[in-house]
Amino acid sequence: MSSVNVPTLKLSTTGDAMPIVGTGLWKVPENACAESVYQAIKAGYRMFDSSSDYANEHESGKGLKRAIDEGLVKREDVFIVTKLWNTFKKAENVEPECRRQLANWQTDYFDLYLIHFPIALQYVDPATRYPPEWFADGKSGIVTERSPLHLTWPAMESLVDKKLVRNLGVCSFPGALLMDLMTYARIPPSVHQVEMHPYNVQEDQLQLCKAFDIKMMAFCSFGPASWVELDVPTVKQVDPLFTHPIITKLASKHSRTPGQILLRWATQRGFIVIPKSVKPERMAENLNSTDFDLEKEDIEEISGLDRRFRFGDPKAFDPKLSIFA
Amino acid sequence: MSSVNVPTLKLSTTGDAMPIVGTGLWKVPENACAESVYQAIKAGYRMFDSSSDYANEHESGKGLKRAIDEGLVKREDVFIVTKLWNTFKKAENVEPECRRQLANWQTDYFDLYLIHFPIALQYVDPATRYPPEWFADGKSGIVTERSPLHLTWPAMESLVDKKLVRNLGVCSFPGALLMDLMTYARIPPSVHQVEMHPYNVQEDQLQLCKAFDIKMMAFCSFGPASWVELDVPTVKQVDPLFTHPIITKLASKHSRTPGQILLRWATQRGFIVIPKSVKPERMAENLNSTDFDLEKEDIEEISGLDRRFRFGDPKAFDPKLSIFA
Repeated sequence: MSSVNVPTLKLSTTGDAMPIVGTGLWKVPENACAESVYQAIKAGYRMFDSSSDYANEHESGKGLKRAIDEGLVKREDVFIVTKLWNTFKKAENVEPECRRQLANWQTDYFDLYLIHFPIALQYVDPATRYPPEWFADGKSGIVTERSPLHLTWPAMESLVDKKLVRNLGVCSFPGALLMDLMTYARIPPSVHQVEMHPYNVQEDQLQLCKAFDIKMMAFCSFGPASWVELDVPTVKQVDPLFTHPIITKLASKHSRTPGQILLRWATQRGFIVIPKSVKPERMAENLNSTDFDLEKEDIEEISGLDRRFRFGDPKAFDPKLSIFA
Repeated sequence: MSSVNVPTLKLSTTGDAMPIVGTGLWKVPENACAESVYQAIKAGYRMFDSSSDYANEHESGKGLKRAIDEGLVKREDVFIVTKLWNTFKKAENVEPECRRQLANWQTDYFDLYLIHFPIALQYVDPATRYPPEWFADGKSGIVTERSPLHLTWPAMESLVDKKLVRNLGVCSFPGALLMDLMTYARIPPSVHQVEMHPYNVQEDQLQLCKAFDIKMMAFCSFGPASWVELDVPTVKQVDPLFTHPIITKLASKHSRTPGQILLRWATQRGFIVIPKSVKPERMAENLNSTDFDLEKEDIEEISGLDRRFRFGDPKAFDPKLSIFA
């Protein structure tokens, strides 16, 4: 078993220690996911970022069980993050969905439960289609639901009361929505997950969340590389980062890989990262990205690439989902 | 009395006709405001954009009364827009503040009442300081208040029930906050006012609001020119628009002033505009900006200047006011 030397951040509401490097299960194929979670634990990973929408929670749970059964880890050694999907925003749908996800993961609690998007879509019965994805009939048509966040959030809080979840959080919340949530949350979010990479450094969100003692989590740390296989048009609008002259220069300077430079830039700025990999050597490389430090000028040089660029924006499905407008 | 040929837009909840060109009272000095409102009415203006924060509502009311007393207009000929300030967000503070503003304007209803910012600040007794502005002690220190929007909004709706206000709206709401409001509003906002100019064309907001049948209103149509006197650092980061080669070229092409080009670009895209002027010739020029049309390519050329640039951002006061993060 590998030694684990990943630093942690202390979450505001529970004091729980969250590893600042984990691995993301988005786009991990279902049939590879059990093995991938098992291998990640073997490689030393202790934090996983999941969602029902990734269509692989059941397999993830199998991988985790195997690692526990083999004595590699105990449940409490692993920090599991997952998310409430858009179609389960009515208060009465929150707990059943969380319990469904717990059953898939073969566990009795999640360490962190996030709202996946600030979007409420029409409920889809899991017997009909699971995961429900974006479209009302599974193929086309966005149908929203009048589920206010101020009714969803207390249902999230009751998951904590029932010990199904330890910490709460949100994803992709514009500042003013996060501020509004903070005016009524009994249990405030501990973590905010956003798209963050050198083309979108999220400095304003970082400062806002610091003021609220909310830890920030970055998805899409490698920029366009995370989106290539999805064939989104935004990928072609920016230069790849692994071969970007600033990143390769700093990789040479620190004798690290471009990926490690991108991850360390994020973690030194205070972001928790969740790079995805199914290849063992890349898994190890991503995990071992906190045992060196970039200099202040290095960090600033990378941050200088900022252009508030987003690869992912639900407005692509329908203009009435323009959450970032 | 001038003839009035300003087109109108029909608001969703009442069908009220709102002129697409009005005049903004932001930064109109208190001692000039009565005369300014009176002269604007004489010049043909029928829509005013105000706020208690502009510290001139009492004087505006004097100007309006003079115009009515002299028979230039009747109250129902004029469309008055004003806004609820950040310190009056608790439900019980909304109606008293609206009534205070009505008394200042010497009228018994507003045509449109907007939430000035998606920000709740600690209540300031008007006997202590009015308008309260941003800082808790009048000079420094931002103190927020836990006033959720979902409790403020029903208080706004009850102003409509009591006929103190005809239409409701918001300002500077990021997409996801507007979407959340739409899930619980009994009376939805009819208008959304945002910073909009060629450096921030707000196309996503325009599409989102179209989907919700919310009309859009632009403040800061002239870009940096609106901010020069406030000496904000952002002004120096972009080129002035009145002398911008694209704008002056189109001004020559259409035999109009640069200001008229900027306003027509906005109104043809569907935005209601509120240029401020205290000079009679500029007042007339701004009002007479809808009797010509830009071509599609002209509009696209101006829109090409977009860089999502904001002159006004409350984060300048405190990072925890990063509403646009």
